[in-house]
Amino acid sequence: MTLGKVIGTVWSTRKDEALVGAKFLIVQQVNLKYEAKDNFIVAVDSVGVGLNEIVLVAQGSSARQTTFTRNKPIDAVIMAKVDKLDISKV
Amino acid sequence: MTLGKVIGTVWSTRKDEALVGAKFLIVQQVNLKYEAKDNFIVAVDSVGVGLNEIVLVAQGSSARQTTFTRNKPIDAVIMAKVDKLDISKV
Amino acid sequence: MTLGKVIGTVWSTRKDEALVGAKFLIVQQVNLKYEAKDNFIVAVDSVGVGLNEIVLVAQGSSARQTTFTRNKPIDAVIMAKVDKLDISKV
Amino acid sequence: MTLGKVIGTVWSTRKDEALVGAKFLIVQQVNLKYEAKDNFIVAVDSVGVGLNEIVLVAQGSSARQTTFTRNKPIDAVIMAKVDKLDISKV
Amino acid sequence: MTLGKVIGTVWSTRKDEALVGAKFLIVQQVNLKYEAKDNFIVAVDSVGVGLNEIVLVAQGSSARQTTFTRNKPIDAVIMAKVDKLDISKV
Repeated sequence: MTLGKVIGTVWSTRKDEALVGAKFLIVQQVNLKYEAKDNFIVAVDSVGVGLNEIVLVAQGSSARQTTFTRNKPIDAVIMAKVDKLDISKV
Repeated sequence: MTLGKVIGTVWSTRKDEALVGAKFLIVQQVNLKYEAKDNFIVAVDSVGVGLNEIVLVAQGSSARQTTFTRNKPIDAVIMAKVDKLDISKV
Repeated sequence: MTLGKVIGTVWSTRKDEALVGAKFLIVQQVNLKYEAKDNFIVAVDSVGVGLNEIVLVAQGSSARQTTFTRNKPIDAVIMAKVDKLDISKV
Repeated sequence: MTLGKVIGTVWSTRKDEALVGAKFLIVQQVNLKYEAKDNFIVAVDSVGVGLNEIVLVAQGSSARQTTFTRNKPIDAVIMAKVDKLDISKV
Repeated sequence: MTLGKVIGTVWSTRKDEALVGAKFLIVQQVNLKYEAKDNFIVAVDSVGVGLNEIVLVAQGSSARQTTFTRNKPIDAVIMAKVDKLDISKV
């Protein structure tokens, strides 16, 4: 999974019909100090997270293994909100 | 999903038989200010978008989860047209 | 899909039994001006292309969605020969 | 598979219901001398490894091919602990 | 598929039970002149290759499309030994 920070929302009216109700969040990838990396991912929220929260994103077919995302054209899902990291060495 | 801008079309006569009728669009990856990044993706359009529109692209097996793309050798699909982004911090 | 140019062939005698008859082509990735990028992909040809032709390559599980590649250990397939690109802006 | 070193743990209370009981480890990618590379992966542990151990991580749909991870929104799994590498040349 | 050179072996005693008997090889990615690139992949051998041989590696779910790898947490497989490359232009 990829570690990221929720920094925004994508608004979309015209989309695949299976995606009605999907909440597309912009997730900035971060390093282990929660500092922004260059890349971001647009992911569907399956756990209910808010702005500036740190999250885990699962990508590829694994992104479709939640109740909401199953069988939908979605390749990234937020499947966990991160409380904290315990790191022995960076 | 990946954020991009539609900048062109790929014309192809000889292709896998399952792809007859597919519309291949060239999607330039963009950052959160809609500025072009280095990479581009060729994606099939499943929602009906036009030139210069901002879109979301789903890749991998998730690209086959639309009515048109199912069971076809397609690894990228435009599944949403972006209206706007709400960003708290870039 | 990835845009590339066919620049050669891989010869292989010892391979997975499902791959007998597979034609492995070397596809140099190119930019929108057909200039070579750094990377290349070895892909199976499913449409019948020749040297120096510009093609589209589908990767991942989508590479197995053709009659020849189904259920085979193949992660890249040439599924279209490109006639031309129409680009509004590069 | 990717070679990495376990350097920490991710704590998460709010997550997809299928993930209750999952142990999320932070795996720093390493080179063949076990020196840290820039990237890290958050992976679920399926073999029982400890801090600072060297491991193999399988990603994508292959990460769901273990008893614990099957059908879950998990895209990276630790499926082997590495004892040692035999390398002819680096 | 990715072109690489077999440069070593990974030894692992503790691993997912489905992986007993798997031979994990270290494959250095190479360019078209067989010169080492920066990256390496750990892949399961399905064709019987030896040290220093040039091989093709299939990744992702396609790595599970061989008799030995099916349904196992393996994301990279050596599915062909390369005899030679015919290249028109590099």
